[in-house]
Amino acid sequence: MPTFHIEMFEGRSVEKKRELAAALTETTCKVLGVDAQSVDIIFTDVKTQDWATGGKLWSDPR
Amino acid sequence: MPTFHIEMFEGRSVEKKRELAAALTETTCKVLGVDAQSVDIIFTDVKTQDWATGGKLWSDPR
Amino acid sequence: MPTFHIEMFEGRSVEKKRELAAALTETTCKVLGVDAQSVDIIFTDVKTQDWATGGKLWSDPR
Amino acid sequence: MPTFHIEMFEGRSVEKKRELAAALTETTCKVLGVDAQSVDIIFTDVKTQDWATGGKLWSDPR
Amino acid sequence: MPTFHIEMFEGRSVEKKRELAAALTETTCKVLGVDAQSVDIIFTDVKTQDWATGGKLWSDPR
Amino acid sequence: MPTFHIEMFEGRSVEKKRELAAALTETTCKVLGVDAQSVDIIFTDVKTQDWATGGKLWSDPR
Repeated sequence: MPTFHIEMFEGRSVEKKRELAAALTETTCKVLGVDAQSVDIIFTDVKTQDWATGGKLWSDPR
Repeated sequence: MPTFHIEMFEGRSVEKKRELAAALTETTCKVLGVDAQSVDIIFTDVKTQDWATGGKLWSDPR
Repeated sequence: MPTFHIEMFEGRSVEKKRELAAALTETTCKVLGVDAQSVDIIFTDVKTQDWATGGKLWSDPR
Repeated sequence: MPTFHIEMFEGRSVEKKRELAAALTETTCKVLGVDAQSVDIIFTDVKTQDWATGGKLWSDPR
Repeated sequence: MPTFHIEMFEGRSVEKKRELAAALTETTCKVLGVDAQSVDIIFTDVKTQDWATGGKLWSDPR
Repeated sequence: MPTFHIEMFEGRSVEKKRELAAALTETTCKVLGVDAQSVDIIFTDVKTQDWATGGKLWSDPR
């Protein structure tokens, strides 16, 4: 039943997400010994203007 | 104070969300004995290409 | 595939959660026309000292 | 390591988010005594039609 | 309606959370011009053994 | 900046989480080409009595 929520900056292609979902699921099954069908992964694209670190938006020059 | 976050595939109409929010709130009030005003529901639409089960995106053929 | 995350103050019994999970799932299936097996509900108990409204913890006198 | 997820109705400008991220980070550092670089803030814009209180969507007349 | 979820390492006292909730709410109201009663803050304590950065749990020596 | 939230049934040892965090981070870096230090993973243990599928708590007989 592992359920993943993965937030990352927008811009990754569907191909990259497909590859990442497959690889993370395989890794999880290997380590935890769970069935692949029990693994859910939900991707959330975050705009750089919606994420701040150190009080500064990632859309701003650092 | 129950706060709901509900993730579902995008495509549901506002009418469906309106109906669902009303029905879920009524159900919650009946079961928990709380006031309707204390129930918050936030819907998140998820693209099928952003949700994977069994290592496969839901936008891909199964 | 609707996935619910429900945050509420701690203290509800397992019996109440069982009843609420069953009722919310039934309501969701009726409104959205989805299969019950596609509905996941995760409850999170929140201590009153971990929730603030209006800048005041719920464990404090109002 | 405080990580903030802030959901609010869509419509705030990038300028407001920039100001809010800076101010919240400063406040957090002052109160908790942590380094600004350890504070992450992620904003999520929510449509009024995706948020319900009291069983009613905020896009509907109250 | 801003709703905050704040994850931080466990160990902060209720007094610190009380102070932080009050200060963040005041900051938010000042910047966004919203009413304090519309601001909800939920704290989640995370064990250092449940948070990893760079592939290493924070409970492990760095 | 990928940030993972992983919910799974409680009961996994710290050793398993350590192994999983390391493996998932390595997988993510390989697929996305990001630096390991940019990957945060937060585990949330969920009791079987707090997770329902098909309207039934996982602590109940299926």
